[in-house]
Amino acid sequence: MKKFKHEQLTDQLVELIERGDLKAGEKLPSLRTLSKQQGISLMTVYHAINTLQGMGYVESRPKSGYFARMPVKTVHFNDQKRLESRKTAESMDELVQMVYKNKDKEGHISLAMNSPSVELLPTTKLKQSILYVNRQKSDACLKYGPVAGIPELREQIAVFSNHNGTPLNSEELIITVGCMEAINLAIHACTKVGDKILIESPTYFGVFQAILSLGRIPIEVETDFKYGVNLEHLKKAIREHQPKACMLVTNFSNPLGASIPDDEKERIAKYLQTQEVVLIENDIYGELYFGKKRGRTLKCFDRNNEIIYCSSFSKSLAPGYRVGWIAPGKYYDKVFRAKLSLSISTATMSQEILAHFLKNGRYDLHLKRLRKQLHMQSLAYQQAIEHYFPEDTIISRPEGGFVLWIELNAEVDTLQLFNKAQEHKINFAPGQLFSIEKDLHQYLRISIGQTFDQHIEKGIKILGELAKQERDN
Amino acid sequence: MKKFKHEQLTDQLVELIERGDLKAGEKLPSLRTLSKQQGISLMTVYHAINTLQGMGYVESRPKSGYFARMPVKTVHFNDQKRLESRKTAESMDELVQMVYKNKDKEGHISLAMNSPSVELLPTTKLKQSILYVNRQKSDACLKYGPVAGIPELREQIAVFSNHNGTPLNSEELIITVGCMEAINLAIHACTKVGDKILIESPTYFGVFQAILSLGRIPIEVETDFKYGVNLEHLKKAIREHQPKACMLVTNFSNPLGASIPDDEKERIAKYLQTQEVVLIENDIYGELYFGKKRGRTLKCFDRNNEIIYCSSFSKSLAPGYRVGWIAPGKYYDKVFRAKLSLSISTATMSQEILAHFLKNGRYDLHLKRLRKQLHMQSLAYQQAIEHYFPEDTIISRPEGGFVLWIELNAEVDTLQLFNKAQEHKINFAPGQLFSIEKDLHQYLRISIGQTFDQHIEKGIKILGELAKQERDN
Repeated sequence: MKKFKHEQLTDQLVELIERGDLKAGEKLPSLRTLSKQQGISLMTVYHAINTLQGMGYVESRPKSGYFARMPVKTVHFNDQKRLESRKTAESMDELVQMVYKNKDKEGHISLAMNSPSVELLPTTKLKQSILYVNRQKSDACLKYGPVAGIPELREQIAVFSNHNGTPLNSEELIITVGCMEAINLAIHACTKVGDKILIESPTYFGVFQAILSLGRIPIEVETDFKYGVNLEHLKKAIREHQPKACMLVTNFSNPLGASIPDDEKERIAKYLQTQEVVLIENDIYGELYFGKKRGRTLKCFDRNNEIIYCSSFSKSLAPGYRVGWIAPGKYYDKVFRAKLSLSISTATMSQEILAHFLKNGRYDLHLKRLRKQLHMQSLAYQQAIEHYFPEDTIISRPEGGFVLWIELNAEVDTLQLFNKAQEHKINFAPGQLFSIEKDLHQYLRISIGQTFDQHIEKGIKILGELAKQERDN
Repeated sequence: MKKFKHEQLTDQLVELIERGDLKAGEKLPSLRTLSKQQGISLMTVYHAINTLQGMGYVESRPKSGYFARMPVKTVHFNDQKRLESRKTAESMDELVQMVYKNKDKEGHISLAMNSPSVELLPTTKLKQSILYVNRQKSDACLKYGPVAGIPELREQIAVFSNHNGTPLNSEELIITVGCMEAINLAIHACTKVGDKILIESPTYFGVFQAILSLGRIPIEVETDFKYGVNLEHLKKAIREHQPKACMLVTNFSNPLGASIPDDEKERIAKYLQTQEVVLIENDIYGELYFGKKRGRTLKCFDRNNEIIYCSSFSKSLAPGYRVGWIAPGKYYDKVFRAKLSLSISTATMSQEILAHFLKNGRYDLHLKRLRKQLHMQSLAYQQAIEHYFPEDTIISRPEGGFVLWIELNAEVDTLQLFNKAQEHKINFAPGQLFSIEKDLHQYLRISIGQTFDQHIEKGIKILGELAKQERDN
């Protein structure tokens, strides 16, 4: 694949650091100097440096510039742990409950909730759709809706998906209770108890829980902090583990914010269709790109109607409506039956309101605004973290989505940090929630969905101070 | 337990018929004669005869009176089938999809949908709650709601449950996507893959699918057509199978319409708490009694906070809202986590509307009206079936709930009947959907939720004629 200039610079610098030509702690040339040396624009250099920060190869020291560093290699794959994963999963379960029990408490500063705040949502325009549905459809909303969801909404989803380059037919869609139900249905449909499922690592804990509670075994695959999973690592994992399925967040994964490059997606989709491994794609963040172009999907490259595609409105439009969808390809019948036995159908009123909203062309306009706002928020959060957190903190630089993945000094245990932060009524997601096999004690995830304001800034400031204390104790 | 007079008469007649003192085909004394002989009211005799019809010991021949008969014993428990249950389950799955694929088609006469028609629901009063929520809460409804559901709704459910004699605390409730999600969560929380779960037989196919798709094994327990499962049969099944859980519909089960007598419920609850068997109670039909008093629940007799109670508004108020609840007792934490990984939370708007409706005391008034209407409809459906179906048809006489369970001549296969009925755009649920172990080819379930009118009557008439043709071919 032909690389962009900023990618070429990124690769060059990684090589220099890995070979030791540029030593950890050594100051990098200024951005201006690099720009001149390489004959590329300042913005391109900035882009590359940002990426390197996310990868852990560069750290920024306030008022001093950028310094080389070696990323801490915390990846400890361990076969024994894999076998004992159920036990470990239980302690992860307890952690999740601990983090999410307080999420709704009054006065808590939430850096854990991975969803847009109401200010980011089109409340006024949605009210018009709500009024319409209540005038015209409130009685119809009382009845059990179709198992697959109302045709009007499926039609709208098919229209904008096709527009985005992912060819979906309304007849092959099933509306779900958010993306989590879609993922549960996908697992049901294409795997059996005891089957192995490849996932990126780290991965959103909800995915672990869904896989484990259905008696399937999650296998964590080596994942690049910026480019996600690649085909070579998938091939290796397939050889070693003979998985039945592979579940990937292809655009802006959670918690890394990584995106698989489009040409790599194509390679992955094509290769896995030659194997007996079902691809399950979770594209819940796909619309939330900060750049100019939407990332493609694996489903684009589905030749045999055998890639299962899941998404939802929960991150982009209406989290509380609980509406997602699944395009199960040839697994349609199995997904249909699983839906019937899991929840019979999805709340009709939520579907009707969204169908009306989309039909009136409002989703596209809303998304344009949301992307800009999220991008600005992402940068504001990043700046605040750079400012208040210890100077050896490494922050991911995602190009879309909802989360920042933060690496602290190895001395810090973010679980202890979490407990201390609780005393200050601050919530975030500790790294240990995102892997069973890896030790991610020095990582944490911060969500950028809440509007950045003094309240959030205060939370980040306190958290930064607590992190310094933890490191220096 | 002291039996009612109609129960005493029922028992007497069953004994006479079983012993052969009253032979199959022999005419019974007239209701008036029985009333005089026994010194009991005509209504009491009628009640007993109705019950005997439901049990299959008596048949009514139009214009001729009542005749004794032996119920067809179709219960074939088969260990091989139990082992092969997965395979059989798949064909059951296909059946379910076949029946439910057409449920929403225009112009179909649906005798399969187990839910109230819109005319039976309080549409006008609900509109006031919808307006209130949209004025006051529409923005709040956009956010992810609490995992356990909104406190206002949990509070209202606790209030009316306590009022009904089932002590529930709002803090121990979790709101679910209908009762099916509650059942899925219960299975997750108290059993593991490979565990056996006792269920009544026949049982709603959704329950089979939920159990099987989670890799658990359903064990069908001998079930009385009127009184449901009893303790002796449960003890026997526990001895033979060492199940981990036992899931029962205690009031107006689906498809039988059977209810476990209150004192038997107490015996079951108390005994099972001395065993290592978790009781899961599904009380979704509990409010829909035709008589004077609500049946009690197993949960009333929960001494150690270990009975899991599930219910929902889907049969009584708002099927399409997809709101149910679970009181998981000591399994709360496990259910909470399973809910998080299955659907994160339940649609907030549905919850807010129902909370407002209940808070304004409207549920109770609505239920009073609904019970009367359902009772009338149940009788109207029964009369039409008696009138149009073959004379050897046996109809259940449920005292609440939504369904009639119909036994046809053993020559009739209701699956073939279903295919013929489809040509006339008539849907119903064939008996084979309700058991894996039993051969229920001559049974069918008819739901009484749609308002009885000429359209429904026509459907029943055609179905009756097709049943006659099937029998006589």
